[in-house]
Amino acid sequence: MSRPMFEHAALVGIGLIGSSISHAMRRKGLAGTITGSARTKATVDTALKLGLIERGYASAAEAVKGADLVILSVPVGACRALAAEIAPHLRQGAIVTDVGSVKAAVVRDIAPHVPKGVHFVPGHPIAGTEQSGPEAGFAELFDNRWTILTPEPGTDKAAVEKLKAFWMALGAKVEIMTPEHHDMVLAVTSHLPHLIAYNIVNTAEHLERVTDSEVIKFSAGGFRDFTRIAASDPTMWRDVFLNNRDAVLEMLGRFSEDLTALQRAIRFGDGDTLFRLFTEARRVRRGIIEAGQDTAAPDFGRQHKADGDVPQPSGKSARK
Amino acid sequence: MSRPMFEHAALVGIGLIGSSISHAMRRKGLAGTITGSARTKATVDTALKLGLIERGYASAAEAVKGADLVILSVPVGACRALAAEIAPHLRQGAIVTDVGSVKAAVVRDIAPHVPKGVHFVPGHPIAGTEQSGPEAGFAELFDNRWTILTPEPGTDKAAVEKLKAFWMALGAKVEIMTPEHHDMVLAVTSHLPHLIAYNIVNTAEHLERVTDSEVIKFSAGGFRDFTRIAASDPTMWRDVFLNNRDAVLEMLGRFSEDLTALQRAIRFGDGDTLFRLFTEARRVRRGIIEAGQDTAAPDFGRQHKADGDVPQPSGKSARK
Repeated sequence: MSRPMFEHAALVGIGLIGSSISHAMRRKGLAGTITGSARTKATVDTALKLGLIERGYASAAEAVKGADLVILSVPVGACRALAAEIAPHLRQGAIVTDVGSVKAAVVRDIAPHVPKGVHFVPGHPIAGTEQSGPEAGFAELFDNRWTILTPEPGTDKAAVEKLKAFWMALGAKVEIMTPEHHDMVLAVTSHLPHLIAYNIVNTAEHLERVTDSEVIKFSAGGFRDFTRIAASDPTMWRDVFLNNRDAVLEMLGRFSEDLTALQRAIRFGDGDTLFRLFTEARRVRRGIIEAGQDTAAPDFGRQHKADGDVPQPSGKSARK
Repeated sequence: MSRPMFEHAALVGIGLIGSSISHAMRRKGLAGTITGSARTKATVDTALKLGLIERGYASAAEAVKGADLVILSVPVGACRALAAEIAPHLRQGAIVTDVGSVKAAVVRDIAPHVPKGVHFVPGHPIAGTEQSGPEAGFAELFDNRWTILTPEPGTDKAAVEKLKAFWMALGAKVEIMTPEHHDMVLAVTSHLPHLIAYNIVNTAEHLERVTDSEVIKFSAGGFRDFTRIAASDPTMWRDVFLNNRDAVLEMLGRFSEDLTALQRAIRFGDGDTLFRLFTEARRVRRGIIEAGQDTAAPDFGRQHKADGDVPQPSGKSARK
């Protein structure tokens, strides 16, 4: 048997992402042993029971001892304290990475704590579901998705290359960019969509002339799609918005400006403008499907009965 | 064999909804014969080839002759002219309905043309996909979804009951309300979500510091969900916004007000407000799943490879 890529991987945080990394590591035998720690004992126990880790600890400091790969999979607001806690216990030559949805703030919070001889390479897999916790993970989560790495200039090249190879072995494609550019790109492809989804759900909940029950019953008109995103982990998303404020506010400004233009077009009955903008939007969808970043199946391939016992109808995949 | 519910159903417009109605009628044998007309010869030819209709016509007037059920499945902006065209050819006692996403404007446009002795019962199935055209339809589209009927006071009760039974036989649940209330409810559960989806896609397309290619590559962070809705038929949606202006502008006002509050919370680092609002939104998602209006599968049960050849991983349905 060939040697695994890492002798000992430590998972600090074992939620959706941490547990999916474990599944994907196991699939390819990327780590000799996997240890882990989590904020709650229940999570550690579940992770042990599911075989996500071989040894579990309440303390991150214990979990990382001797590891040549340390992956922080925690809300970005928790990174600073964890980095301080694990710093004295990191093995020389180890690679430390994270999976946070914000990168500049994470670099600011983690980098100062990383000892000389340890390689910090920040990362962010652009993948997830609306579910949380160690039972939500699965090995395929990163397949064909992008992971962005944002190493500072001067980071050990071999460490960056090794982490890149690791993510590719997990199934992902890898791109390298600056933390600042990452935060701008994700502000539009992830943070703004989540903010808007949270917002429309809250708007719908607080109407006087439409009941909550009506909102739920007739949600298949489009609203239900937004509720999936808005069911994502509140702690994670609070931290994202607190830590990527400037880029999110900039994108929000653009969004509101464009929405005002649409609002005017509706108010003044400008059908040509509406038609033109709606037609342009179709092109982006096609690009995403061609790039393999979403399914071409109508309605995301949703089962057309909520109880899921209806087979995919054959006519459903017919397309113009 | 028992007699079908209708001797002769006429489909005026054979796109996603018209073709799905045909499939669902065939599934239960609800019509003795089905005729149809469409704006283009290509659609009529396809509908004949697929067996959606037995006889196809370029003219709606021809298609409705002798029909005891006439279903207009066209963009709401096309209803007025079509109603005028078919009016002289409608059979006494026939039921005329539509599937438009706006109801007050449709009543305004169709009702004046409907001859005495013909029963006009406006309808709207809250179901669809982002695809269009006669090949996009499938029999299961309406299963477990709601159809709203908005008959005016004084409409023949037997006709309303019969159309209700018809939609239930197509697989739907039926609710009756006024056109004005329908338009308010759908403004929030359907029209506003579509408008916002179109808007964010257009915002993302016109940034200077993030390329279109980056938007597409990293769309799995949430953005891609919005592009599905924004891939819906531009003509249909232009007509919706032109014909439900007041309710959409009202909901848009509420949405913008709420978004401004979120924006302030982000600007001033008010994590407690963000956390509270994000947590509330989760509840609505649960309500929708419990009501059978969306799948409980994570990520809508999307295949986790774009090429669709990966079986549903068993760990994927695990939930906390």
